[in-house]
Amino acid sequence: MTEASNLELSGTVEDGVHRLKIRVYFEDTDFSGIVYHANYLKYCERGRSDFLRHSGVHHAELFSSDDGSEPLAFAVKRMEIDFVRPARIDDILSVESRVAKMAGASMQIDQRVLRGDDVLFEAKVIAVLINADGKPRRFPEDLRRRMGG
Amino acid sequence: MTEASNLELSGTVEDGVHRLKIRVYFEDTDFSGIVYHANYLKYCERGRSDFLRHSGVHHAELFSSDDGSEPLAFAVKRMEIDFVRPARIDDILSVESRVAKMAGASMQIDQRVLRGDDVLFEAKVIAVLINADGKPRRFPEDLRRRMGG
Amino acid sequence: MTEASNLELSGTVEDGVHRLKIRVYFEDTDFSGIVYHANYLKYCERGRSDFLRHSGVHHAELFSSDDGSEPLAFAVKRMEIDFVRPARIDDILSVESRVAKMAGASMQIDQRVLRGDDVLFEAKVIAVLINADGKPRRFPEDLRRRMGG
Amino acid sequence: MTEASNLELSGTVEDGVHRLKIRVYFEDTDFSGIVYHANYLKYCERGRSDFLRHSGVHHAELFSSDDGSEPLAFAVKRMEIDFVRPARIDDILSVESRVAKMAGASMQIDQRVLRGDDVLFEAKVIAVLINADGKPRRFPEDLRRRMGG
Repeated sequence: MTEASNLELSGTVEDGVHRLKIRVYFEDTDFSGIVYHANYLKYCERGRSDFLRHSGVHHAELFSSDDGSEPLAFAVKRMEIDFVRPARIDDILSVESRVAKMAGASMQIDQRVLRGDDVLFEAKVIAVLINADGKPRRFPEDLRRRMGG
Repeated sequence: MTEASNLELSGTVEDGVHRLKIRVYFEDTDFSGIVYHANYLKYCERGRSDFLRHSGVHHAELFSSDDGSEPLAFAVKRMEIDFVRPARIDDILSVESRVAKMAGASMQIDQRVLRGDDVLFEAKVIAVLINADGKPRRFPEDLRRRMGG
Repeated sequence: MTEASNLELSGTVEDGVHRLKIRVYFEDTDFSGIVYHANYLKYCERGRSDFLRHSGVHHAELFSSDDGSEPLAFAVKRMEIDFVRPARIDDILSVESRVAKMAGASMQIDQRVLRGDDVLFEAKVIAVLINADGKPRRFPEDLRRRMGG
Repeated sequence: MTEASNLELSGTVEDGVHRLKIRVYFEDTDFSGIVYHANYLKYCERGRSDFLRHSGVHHAELFSSDDGSEPLAFAVKRMEIDFVRPARIDDILSVESRVAKMAGASMQIDQRVLRGDDVLFEAKVIAVLINADGKPRRFPEDLRRRMGG
């Protein structure tokens, strides 16, 4: 598999907006017939992970201590979320992510889940970088630069 | 199994606060070593479901159309959530839920997840009742009365 | 979005083998650092769903009663599964599915999850079609023909 | 919270059979109205974890390297599973687990999920102990003795 096709799997970035296509499967729905509410947070996390990937940031590398660095992982600190319309089995959704604010140790990412032009879900996400003890750490300089901070 | 032991499985209500004990299992954690952020929404949903159960409201009955009524299900409309401290494998957590506001067609439920006395997670949840088309419906009068509205 | 790009999201079929690329995200892993074992069943279900989609079978249509037909859904009846090697965060996996046997009311689908050429997971899956009461139903003739039975 | 009430949350052991009560919530179901098949594996994993807990084995301790020991975690190697009857929202289920065979580096645990006296799900599970590299390790002698091997 080429690096190009891998990036394709990871969505696209245009004008600072990352877009990832997601299919709704059995696992995503609940007995009421629609996508279970907590699963939109999974979709958004996939979007953020692939947005970071496009910026050259990989979870496995961040978390590794092979280079002598402290293991780090992204964590969500706060979210404000609105469930606007339900998604259903077989739907193809698009997760949009953009960096709204970037500070030394936290960033705000605005995210939306759409089906075609219909907005189904909106979230303002405050994310931080933490070490193995859950302590916040400043973003590495190159990560800030790449993410457009 | 007696009705009493079933209710025990569903937590307790005291002074309008519902409390449910939850164990953290493998399924709840992620590779960074802590509980995956979206799973707190599952914990809160369990808390709300069991709070409703204590008020005599059952999802299966609401959703059934056996009595000629429209199938209804609870849905979350909006959430504001704060991730305060991480939970880990084997932890025993307590989910606290209380009705903060009750209107004709929506209610606000304030929820917290604690480990001992430490607050790990806080959420303000706006919940509504929807029919099979996703349209909001007014809460039945007895549900409002039971939930302390 | 074109029908072509939708099908691309749904993997490819070649010589009767369906292949779907899947990214490992936070949600898939557990605190031991690897993909949580039950999530391979989700990957396989995605593979089977997209394999069916390529054969013109859609869950939403099967489950709909708009055309006067009984609502139907696929269900797994039996699985034999082997966990060979662990997958990790950021991995790109390939889910392979092929119809091994097709009978009137059940089919055996053989599935594998690979990372590159390494087999991580193998499963023999017996799937059936059930109605809303959980009763098994015969496969529609065109479904059997399309799936290569 | 007392140690006694913690153990109560973890089910009971009688004549070598561990039993854990589980409630079916929204998160467990899918759009076809029943419990999503992969979630029975979660139920079984909860059962095995609490069975181990009753035997004095804790995941967090096994995985810790604070005492100079290698971090270890349980992993499933193979499963044979039968889905007999569906479970639904609000159901109370019982997960039964018993050690069927114990060898030096693997054990077979037979598990069932019941609703009342009805068997819904059966599994034969081969579990092993692995280190951080995914390499199998022999069970500690006291673990084997406690688990009745």
